[in-house]
Amino acid sequence: MVVERTDAARNRRAILRATEELLVQHGPERISLDLVAATAGVGKGTVFRRFGSRTGLFQELLADRAAGIREAIGSGSPPLGPGAPPRERLLGFLDELAQLAAKNIALIAAHEQACAADKHSDPTYLCWHGHVTGLIRQVQPDADADFLAHTLLGTFDADLVRHLTAHGGEARLRVSTRSLATALLR
Amino acid sequence: MVVERTDAARNRRAILRATEELLVQHGPERISLDLVAATAGVGKGTVFRRFGSRTGLFQELLADRAAGIREAIGSGSPPLGPGAPPRERLLGFLDELAQLAAKNIALIAAHEQACAADKHSDPTYLCWHGHVTGLIRQVQPDADADFLAHTLLGTFDADLVRHLTAHGGEARLRVSTRSLATALLR
Repeated sequence: MVVERTDAARNRRAILRATEELLVQHGPERISLDLVAATAGVGKGTVFRRFGSRTGLFQELLADRAAGIREAIGSGSPPLGPGAPPRERLLGFLDELAQLAAKNIALIAAHEQACAADKHSDPTYLCWHGHVTGLIRQVQPDADADFLAHTLLGTFDADLVRHLTAHGGEARLRVSTRSLATALLR
Repeated sequence: MVVERTDAARNRRAILRATEELLVQHGPERISLDLVAATAGVGKGTVFRRFGSRTGLFQELLADRAAGIREAIGSGSPPLGPGAPPRERLLGFLDELAQLAAKNIALIAAHEQACAADKHSDPTYLCWHGHVTGLIRQVQPDADADFLAHTLLGTFDADLVRHLTAHGGEARLRVSTRSLATALLR
């Protein structure tokens, strides 16, 4: 039983690693479950049973890469975690997302394309949107927090991340997002 | 020669109308050039030669539906056209886009999915972004107008349009976009 679980965890890591490698090498269009399985050295059935589809694969890979941020905002130390003033928590969170997006642009683009029919129901997006909405409500109770949260997270649109980092690197993405948040919350 | 041009124009209108009808009835996934040709009553070759691909079809349909706005900002009367103060022109333009997006949500979604790999190079988006950037520069010369223009246009993301209009109708979309612009330009 323990051996099976260990195998499953190892397969999962191999599949996610293969997906990431293929994304960086080829872009999302050419990635199929077959190719991921072959690259990871597992059967196609294993990939299919665990992830269901390309969309599931990209969603899970993003959730995995964002797991550290999710833990930090839930129970980490300030300014990301509970305890810091909401404005600082928000700016700290946006900095983390800027770093994540700049480092994982191929994944962000693939995830966005795969989820294009319904971005808002992706589990990672839902988590981010819920966190940002809650913090905005604390800072500015009369704002349309739901809308402003979508707007702030819109900065991590793949085309925009690519454009901003191409003209100013990760710093421009971070500064742009911070200044947007500051303008919206004054 | 005149007859041929008239035929071409009539075919173009029939193809765009068929695309729009199919979008509203079925959503983007099931739309193919074959189906559009059959619905419009023209040969597949005609659709292919004129539009090239599904992406070309959705880009052209959006450009067609946005043609009135494009003319109004170029040479129409104020507040959309030249002559009004830039802040008023911007708010007027965003109102028009809100109306366009709310009325053409199926098209906005299809266009976004088809252009997902490179939204920023779509001709209609380029025109809108250029206009908004220019107006922001006039209102606030020290702002990152390029970034703020992408952020403002991000409000017309299909999922966000669907979400906002489902909870407050076209009015919420218009008010949200206006208040975002006002917050960013004070």
